Amino acid sequence: MLASANDLTAARQRIAAAYDPAALEAAGTQLMAVLAEHFHNVESRDAKVLNWNEPAAQVREARRLLDEFLLPPREGLGEGSLVASITSRIAALTRETLARGQNLHHPHYVGHQVPAPIPLAGLFDLVGTITNQCMAIYEMGPWATAVEHAVIDAVGERIGFTSGRFAGLVTSGGSLANLTGLLTARNVTLGDAWSAGLSGRNPAPVLVAQADAHYSVTRSAGILGLGTNQIIPAALDQRRRMDPDQLDRTLSDLRARGTPIIAVSAAACATPIGAFDPLADIADVCRRHKVWLHVDAAHGGALVFSQRHRHLLAGIEQADSIVCDAHKMMFVPALCAMLFYKNREHRIATFHQDAPYLFDPTATELRDYDSGIVNLECTKRSAAFGVWGIWSLLGPQIFADLVDVTIDLAQKFHALLEATDDFVPLHEPQCNIVVFRYEPPELRDAPVEKIDAFQLQLRRAVIESGEFYLVQSRLDGRTILRTTMMNPLTTEDDLRGLLDCIRSAARTLL
Amino acid sequence: MLASANDLTAARQRIAAAYDPAALEAAGTQLMAVLAEHFHNVESRDAKVLNWNEPAAQVREARRLLDEFLLPPREGLGEGSLVASITSRIAALTRETLARGQNLHHPHYVGHQVPAPIPLAGLFDLVGTITNQCMAIYEMGPWATAVEHAVIDAVGERIGFTSGRFAGLVTSGGSLANLTGLLTARNVTLGDAWSAGLSGRNPAPVLVAQADAHYSVTRSAGILGLGTNQIIPAALDQRRRMDPDQLDRTLSDLRARGTPIIAVSAAACATPIGAFDPLADIADVCRRHKVWLHVDAAHGGALVFSQRHRHLLAGIEQADSIVCDAHKMMFVPALCAMLFYKNREHRIATFHQDAPYLFDPTATELRDYDSGIVNLECTKRSAAFGVWGIWSLLGPQIFADLVDVTIDLAQKFHALLEATDDFVPLHEPQCNIVVFRYEPPELRDAPVEKIDAFQLQLRRAVIESGEFYLVQSRLDGRTILRTTMMNPLTTEDDLRGLLDCIRSAARTLL
Repeated sequence: MLASANDLTAARQRIAAAYDPAALEAAGTQLMAVLAEHFHNVESRDAKVLNWNEPAAQVREARRLLDEFLLPPREGLGEGSLVASITSRIAALTRETLARGQNLHHPHYVGHQVPAPIPLAGLFDLVGTITNQCMAIYEMGPWATAVEHAVIDAVGERIGFTSGRFAGLVTSGGSLANLTGLLTARNVTLGDAWSAGLSGRNPAPVLVAQADAHYSVTRSAGILGLGTNQIIPAALDQRRRMDPDQLDRTLSDLRARGTPIIAVSAAACATPIGAFDPLADIADVCRRHKVWLHVDAAHGGALVFSQRHRHLLAGIEQADSIVCDAHKMMFVPALCAMLFYKNREHRIATFHQDAPYLFDPTATELRDYDSGIVNLECTKRSAAFGVWGIWSLLGPQIFADLVDVTIDLAQKFHALLEATDDFVPLHEPQCNIVVFRYEPPELRDAPVEKIDAFQLQLRRAVIESGEFYLVQSRLDGRTILRTTMMNPLTTEDDLRGLLDCIRSAARTLL
Repeated sequence: MLASANDLTAARQRIAAAYDPAALEAAGTQLMAVLAEHFHNVESRDAKVLNWNEPAAQVREARRLLDEFLLPPREGLGEGSLVASITSRIAALTRETLARGQNLHHPHYVGHQVPAPIPLAGLFDLVGTITNQCMAIYEMGPWATAVEHAVIDAVGERIGFTSGRFAGLVTSGGSLANLTGLLTARNVTLGDAWSAGLSGRNPAPVLVAQADAHYSVTRSAGILGLGTNQIIPAALDQRRRMDPDQLDRTLSDLRARGTPIIAVSAAACATPIGAFDPLADIADVCRRHKVWLHVDAAHGGALVFSQRHRHLLAGIEQADSIVCDAHKMMFVPALCAMLFYKNREHRIATFHQDAPYLFDPTATELRDYDSGIVNLECTKRSAAFGVWGIWSLLGPQIFADLVDVTIDLAQKFHALLEATDDFVPLHEPQCNIVVFRYEPPELRDAPVEKIDAFQLQLRRAVIESGEFYLVQSRLDGRTILRTTMMNPLTTEDDLRGLLDCIRSAARTLL
């Protein structure tokens, strides 16, 4: 059906309004005031951490707003009033959004491994988003590509890689980065797995993974066709770190049986209690057995910035692939996951394809800047702008500060727990993760099932109150409470308040 | 090493400055003025489309800015001057960024399948980014989750799925969405592939893919362990659409040999010329052979909004899985890829794992809102805010407008090409993609290799001039020029200008 000219004229008018720079400036300026007020209230504890609402009711409300859009397709609004209408509708939708979200910037947020990011990082992110500097090929995001390369180079050098010999990329999340790194390991290890597939292979190849590995590592075995049954857990020591001697025996056994080993996946740190594997010793073992070493440093990789704590990563530069999420302990908004290869040539082992409409064969010198060749993503966000902007603004010291302050908070919280007789700290924290149980006198002799169930009840009471946000987990078959210091504005007083809040919730429940 | 109190006091002061809401408001307000000026200049053609710079030089510049950060770790700046310093440094870094990027909002941008997005969508995106409303579990982004569900429900209904019986999710990009859909198909088709892997299977399972399928579809075979050799191309008709009769024969042959078929992957539309497969007929064939039908509608899925064009998607609601990128023809910033399942229960076939520290076993009614269960991503951006915001602001008519105007532009451009005797249009456009060659009289009798090489030289001359941005590709073994109408502000006059620009570049080259 051909478009009638009249219809398209009206359509073009509506589009012009949507693309009007004056509307953007007015609405954006108003938005900044709304956001600043929100951060002020939340950071100064003048709000709840989480405004708890049932999900089904939230979905209905989000759908209602969608269906009651502001502007029916009509003309006749003067330009000034159109801009005013857009501005006030955006402010209203933003207030609704802010009132119904999770307030990570509230100092009482001590939840998941997702930070209260530096708000200014969001501004740098916006520049890339609003102008849509996608990559896949250099031309489509030349500066975004350059920024990504600069960040990868600068972080890779801090990791201890040799300049010019390593490579890296930024991708949408640690799970995708782990998958990409392990896919590369699979292809390098098995030779023709990319084209021939895994069907018909015997013996079946395995992945040796830290027993506490993040689920994205174990999922990778399912995705890549190895099968999750082919995961060999690497045994841990008493502090939940991979044991190099036991790893040595595991690899020897596998080699003796002729089993192909895709990789050893170590953790820096693992999620349950934030334990750092002894990477230098593990790297030795892997080198002796000629096995690819992958390090999931999604959470702890940022410790390379800290003089105090970078010893926990000693040896990391010997890994074949490393994942480090800038959107965790570098405190920028999600997502900015970095994947590094020690050997530059491995970056092209991940995929073996080209897309003729993307890559210009006369400009092969540009290939190294066409991210689509090495990245699972085709269209790709300019995800490194946040890190690059903050680093260019405040210098790398800010990343060290954030690591130091949040690990210090975890140590202080652990000391507070130890000083009580109703809280049971479960480990000495190496990182900013602290897990514990609450066992008031009334429950001291209760069956463990009851104590476990009580932790869940407690947590739900606390989070639905909006006073604090923490999470639950399982450790050695027991239910536990878990905090991560992902807001550097949290103070020791806030953490004392958390203990009181839990005690008070317990009294109500008991 | 224990932190000394003094060091941490200074660190906390630096952190407080970085998290200061007043700095955010001042810098953000200034940023909006810079952005508005940029959009004004670019949209009114008062700038180059692409400011071409060699990548290595760009990387050096990005690194220089990174290394010359504004604020060494010092105290003593008064609060007012700190805010002023931050504001001016962010404005300067933004100007640098804008001066070195790809200007998709310039009406002379007719390049890749990446849109000049509605700028206002970036504001909604910012709200989620700056407050870091990540998901994985409902609690961490309750409103972001609700917004995603509302968008998935609303788009799914437009696709023609039955309310309450389908499911969907938003993920970081069409490539990841295709991978996820095909992973689900693999697991459903093969039963125990997730845990047992593909090793030892005989005969090896195959993927039947549209011969022009996007590289993310064919890559999926490599990633998922099938092997790219196991891709069976589905034959095309003269207009590059999948031929249902030939598909029927292909599937019959495979079934006769007992070969497991993961899925048929159709395209709506395929990338080379924007051809839409006849989905209703293909769905019939797949149903008869009991094969999973996956439709990669990353580019063309938005045609469900258009009364003029939605007939090209007739039958799409019979597909088992569908990918539709809102960051293509719904004109929001990257990334917002939607993946739909016709049957709700398939959403949990993708992964078969849990992560105890994430999911509360006492709150199983929340599981349907914990995205980590169905999504490859763990930490996940609130990627649906852009679509939700624009829809809530301007209503769904704006998406129809964008589809109608850009397809109309493609048809007009095709007519312009046909009216010349030096341009060779290569297809009748169904979508907003137009491919052609320039063959001036001087080259009419030249060998095809020379004509092909000339297209590449021409394009490079045009894009490095900054006058227009278009791309090159290969079609039937020949090099071609390729445009996609991804900026609704482009006019027929702009397209006439493109022809003149190409002719002028040709004269210089010849």
